[in-house]
Amino acid sequence: MSQNSVDTDLLIIGAGPVGLFTVFEAGLLKMRCHLIDALPIPGGQCAEIYPKKPIYDIPGYPSVLAGELIDNLMKQIEPFKPTFTFGERAQALQKLDDGSFIVTSSRGTTIKAKAVAIAAGLGCFEPRKPALENLEKFEDKGVDYIIRDPEVYRDKKVVIAGGGDSALDWTIFLSDIAEEVTLVHRRNSFRGALDSAEKVAALAEQGKVNLLTDTEAKSLNGNGVLKGVTLKHKTQGEINLQADNFIPLFGLSPKLGPIADFGLNIDKNAIEVDTTDYSTNIPGIYAIGDINTYPGKLKLILCGFHEGTLAVQSAFKYMFPDKKLSFKYTTVQGVNGFE
Amino acid sequence: MSQNSVDTDLLIIGAGPVGLFTVFEAGLLKMRCHLIDALPIPGGQCAEIYPKKPIYDIPGYPSVLAGELIDNLMKQIEPFKPTFTFGERAQALQKLDDGSFIVTSSRGTTIKAKAVAIAAGLGCFEPRKPALENLEKFEDKGVDYIIRDPEVYRDKKVVIAGGGDSALDWTIFLSDIAEEVTLVHRRNSFRGALDSAEKVAALAEQGKVNLLTDTEAKSLNGNGVLKGVTLKHKTQGEINLQADNFIPLFGLSPKLGPIADFGLNIDKNAIEVDTTDYSTNIPGIYAIGDINTYPGKLKLILCGFHEGTLAVQSAFKYMFPDKKLSFKYTTVQGVNGFE
Repeated sequence: MSQNSVDTDLLIIGAGPVGLFTVFEAGLLKMRCHLIDALPIPGGQCAEIYPKKPIYDIPGYPSVLAGELIDNLMKQIEPFKPTFTFGERAQALQKLDDGSFIVTSSRGTTIKAKAVAIAAGLGCFEPRKPALENLEKFEDKGVDYIIRDPEVYRDKKVVIAGGGDSALDWTIFLSDIAEEVTLVHRRNSFRGALDSAEKVAALAEQGKVNLLTDTEAKSLNGNGVLKGVTLKHKTQGEINLQADNFIPLFGLSPKLGPIADFGLNIDKNAIEVDTTDYSTNIPGIYAIGDINTYPGKLKLILCGFHEGTLAVQSAFKYMFPDKKLSFKYTTVQGVNGFE
Repeated sequence: MSQNSVDTDLLIIGAGPVGLFTVFEAGLLKMRCHLIDALPIPGGQCAEIYPKKPIYDIPGYPSVLAGELIDNLMKQIEPFKPTFTFGERAQALQKLDDGSFIVTSSRGTTIKAKAVAIAAGLGCFEPRKPALENLEKFEDKGVDYIIRDPEVYRDKKVVIAGGGDSALDWTIFLSDIAEEVTLVHRRNSFRGALDSAEKVAALAEQGKVNLLTDTEAKSLNGNGVLKGVTLKHKTQGEINLQADNFIPLFGLSPKLGPIADFGLNIDKNAIEVDTTDYSTNIPGIYAIGDINTYPGKLKLILCGFHEGTLAVQSAFKYMFPDKKLSFKYTTVQGVNGFE
């Protein structure tokens, strides 16, 4: 998916629900969109964190799964043929003399755009890391924070840490793949779904999973690559385990990241905007959805839909000051997509 | 449906999509809602004018029929048990010393509310009337602008005027019911759906419909009740027809109506609001959806959803200045409705 160089009308940073719907409204105005997202798939939090969770406050949907909402939005914007750069973070922004922008990604992709809409939600999600000495030394050398390909762990000795759904679900899944799976949790009860917790307990009874509650990882052992983990039980002292992999699954935490250095006015990790058009202090840059702030702001997906819709009207005038903007309803004519 | 007296937290004037969704957001804050609408059913324009037309710009719906959207919204707000006054217009508004309001309907129903949200769309829809002398004298005495019950026309001589879908569809429908149906249109081609126009032409060939194009109604004849219509063809002069009913179907035209006299700041038939909370110049009254105006305003349903959502946050503080407002997402807990 990585592209070395892209040229577009509107660059949307963030491919969550708000960024995606903005493609539709931009498309009605005949603007082409490119989206960049640090995640490998569209949908933002909806896809990465809670695809199977129902949402109840999308207008017109008594209930919709977050993943289903994203699928519907992808279908809705299809006529406007958006292009995507996935798995790369918007790293640096430069404004050119002609008013256009060049955004460079974490992997060196350059995107030239006539205007920019930042729809980056709560920012980039980074894994929460346990406070362990030498942790970072073992990253990619046995320590992983996200499981991308379970086959990597085939016939390995794996130690998973955490008490949520992610830790429970992967423990169950890897028990069939890995040589040995140990789940370490510092408490005695789990935050994750009850039936997942019961399934892990059953696997532990069958000897298929090694379950250690009231226990925390204390140190990592190995010379260059991970060889073992030292654990500490609340009352029973230290346990030394052989391990090829240590996978702490403590959730993801949002970070504003490089956007903080774009020269935008920031208030408490959010970008200040004018509610007339959700423009920022830099003409040609808009901020929509959870990442912006203004008096009365609510961090709701439905508010982001409105913000993106008003922002593209203004972006059109910014890009094409001499063109006439004709605002059309869709109900009679339907949607005219791009070739 | 008529009620003599109602007491509620939030009165919503207008039961179109924006008014309906506002019930959901108010419900999350534990406010009860009553809605009043001049139409006999919920949905506003979506239900009355284009229930079978698809809409393409509701976020998350690549396409949805207007009537289906309304059905979904009604289902979404069901847990919050809204109450309705249908078929009555909000006629007068009085603000009491304690900050609450009494709204009186066109049929004398009084609604007491702690705050009011006006979601009246383009206002009340009134039929466009042809410029005919004596027209109003024959209203309800042979002249109708809306067909509510086709059985009224059984075995009658009916003259329909108009060139749109409504005129074509009712001509086809009444050709089986009325003794004689004449369709009069001042042009030679129809604005309505091509296959409807073809069907009317076929019925005319079969002698089941009397089709007069390039023809206009000139005067209405009768003494107290309608007896006939005098028509004029573009080139061939006058035609006198016996008629029990004359039904001009020239569409509906929006009127702000009595809301214009509520003391609100109005700009070009729309109510001026502050975008922080979509409040009007009268504290406790909000205006949301197509009826409001502010810099950057777009008359889109999705914008009204956002406006209603922010308005109820402010309405809550207006009603309950001492209560703490706790803003919750719905994704984890689901929706807790009212008993």
